[in-house]
Amino acid sequence: MDPRVHEHAELLVDWSARIGDGDDVIVSVSEGAHDLAVAVAGALGERGANPRFLYDSGEVQRAYLRAAEAFDADPDFERALFERADAYLRLGGGRNTAALADVPEATRREHGRAREGIREARFGTDWVSTVHPTRSLAQQAGMAHEEYREFVYDAVLRDWEALAAEMARLKEILDAGSEVRIEADRTDLVMSIEGRTAVNSAASVAYDSHNLPSGEVFTAPVADSVEGEVAFDVPMTIRGTRVRDAFLRFEGGEVVEFDAGAGASVIESVLETDEGARRLGELGIGMNRGIDRPTDSILFDEKMAGTVHMALGRAYEACLPDGESGNGSATHTDLIADMGGDARLIVDGETIQRNGLFRWEDGFAE
Amino acid sequence: MDPRVHEHAELLVDWSARIGDGDDVIVSVSEGAHDLAVAVAGALGERGANPRFLYDSGEVQRAYLRAAEAFDADPDFERALFERADAYLRLGGGRNTAALADVPEATRREHGRAREGIREARFGTDWVSTVHPTRSLAQQAGMAHEEYREFVYDAVLRDWEALAAEMARLKEILDAGSEVRIEADRTDLVMSIEGRTAVNSAASVAYDSHNLPSGEVFTAPVADSVEGEVAFDVPMTIRGTRVRDAFLRFEGGEVVEFDAGAGASVIESVLETDEGARRLGELGIGMNRGIDRPTDSILFDEKMAGTVHMALGRAYEACLPDGESGNGSATHTDLIADMGGDARLIVDGETIQRNGLFRWEDGFAE
Repeated sequence: MDPRVHEHAELLVDWSARIGDGDDVIVSVSEGAHDLAVAVAGALGERGANPRFLYDSGEVQRAYLRAAEAFDADPDFERALFERADAYLRLGGGRNTAALADVPEATRREHGRAREGIREARFGTDWVSTVHPTRSLAQQAGMAHEEYREFVYDAVLRDWEALAAEMARLKEILDAGSEVRIEADRTDLVMSIEGRTAVNSAASVAYDSHNLPSGEVFTAPVADSVEGEVAFDVPMTIRGTRVRDAFLRFEGGEVVEFDAGAGASVIESVLETDEGARRLGELGIGMNRGIDRPTDSILFDEKMAGTVHMALGRAYEACLPDGESGNGSATHTDLIADMGGDARLIVDGETIQRNGLFRWEDGFAE
Repeated sequence: MDPRVHEHAELLVDWSARIGDGDDVIVSVSEGAHDLAVAVAGALGERGANPRFLYDSGEVQRAYLRAAEAFDADPDFERALFERADAYLRLGGGRNTAALADVPEATRREHGRAREGIREARFGTDWVSTVHPTRSLAQQAGMAHEEYREFVYDAVLRDWEALAAEMARLKEILDAGSEVRIEADRTDLVMSIEGRTAVNSAASVAYDSHNLPSGEVFTAPVADSVEGEVAFDVPMTIRGTRVRDAFLRFEGGEVVEFDAGAGASVIESVLETDEGARRLGELGIGMNRGIDRPTDSILFDEKMAGTVHMALGRAYEACLPDGESGNGSATHTDLIADMGGDARLIVDGETIQRNGLFRWEDGFAE
């Protein structure tokens, strides 16, 4: 086996999920993630944890969802499993990213609603989501399999302590700051982050970070404060449709105009989800230099160094002052903008990043 | 997909496990059983059941077992899952029957002991064990894959109601009988079945039968009563070793002499397990005419029409009078004898089967 599979597994178990002796650990294994599951099993055995492996198959799920007419709310046996678990490790990587393409949207929604209690129990564990580099994900990224493997391990096998230390610098600036301005081609956007707390998302539950790879600092804008326009030039697939060059104009925090080079109808359907879907819930800044190009996977794309992303919809609680509920919505849809060229990230009038370089990096010029 | 995969799934869900609306069902999916899992997911969805799929991988299990130094007793999260489940469907069929070959026997035993509570909870559900015809099982059987698929579906897709009715005739004879005698080449064995109840193992939990395929009638001999000698001419693999032409001689219920054409040392290690391992716990009579040859898999071999099998070790509770514990042992090791040629199965002096034919079959001659 590629030794990087074992490195990945150990990073997941030790750095990300902080598994210890006696921990009860659910491991969800996607159709194509067998090799990573083998490596994770070894690492969990060494740590003295108790693993239980679940089979997460798109094809199995599709067959069930298409056949079922209704869904019982939070089946007791499964809820008990998640409520009693200490950690949940999701090993993504299927064999077909479109495996659920012919499951009606209404069925998925209904199934999701019936499992809110189980989802909550899962989020109550030390959960971490990662992926094994399968051919299907390579295809989604438009890469050869071997090329994609290199890409994934470059993104995952990083010096996370060093990156956490660098991200702490940005978090400090955002936590102390009041106003963020983003200037780029077709973009001039301003928003308040007064009183908000940024998350140093360093791919570990110890940092409130639940993705491996991660490598972003994110916060929640004061939703009403967002003003101006922004162009998202990193292409991505949203709800099964390719979106390119999305453009949004905000007034008083709300989207008042939108457009896209492709997929404008998806942006429209996102905006129509509910009230909160017309407002920003997240501003995130990608800082993972192992991710050097978009691969049509949000797990990677939003962490790409030299990009920022903004999410229409739900804000993360960790960013909000105590007692404030923040922007609420059933959706949280990320859009990504490249910060190369002459783009600037400005906090309280000071340029923090220009042309993808932070002020503490060599070559930075205000 | 081969339509027989769907027939298999429906038989498993409806006839075998009797799944109904709202049932909480654990489905254990072996590495090679994906297609059957897809079909089972559809059938469970149609019935209104709530499935949870587990990943049962020999390679994952091996990695965990080899890495772990000790095992916590019955981890709470997993025990809760099994205790709350209504049914458990095991979809066997891996990719390598020797996947656990280098896991030390002591580790397996220790792991097994640490999970007695979970095992008990699992046996407390409506559990059914079946297999998907994988290449690995075909290889174990010495068959081409396509040939093995035909074999498996011949064994599984039977008219179970008709077979249950036929097996009821034999059960009636055994329930009313006191003494069973088996006469064959190198075999003259007699045992008491006084007061014992035979199980009509018709591949359904409604018949106390938990294998698909099944097709046997079995009972528990009075352990002290077994006298004489018996030759087991159906070859099989026990604890990883090939056993051929095993021979046992009983006095006062106990094995006093043993031998084998191959694998005698395994028979010896079975007999040395404990006191009960030197006595018979089961007499079973195979009645599945879809199984026409041994395939080195106990799930199939012991049900083969025209064979009988006897197990050294543990007796099944369903066969025992109330309050009697029967022969106890940590092992239950089956050995199989062909009843062709001039072999006779005699109950209280009456020949019930000769040359593989029962007295109610065409061609039977006492």
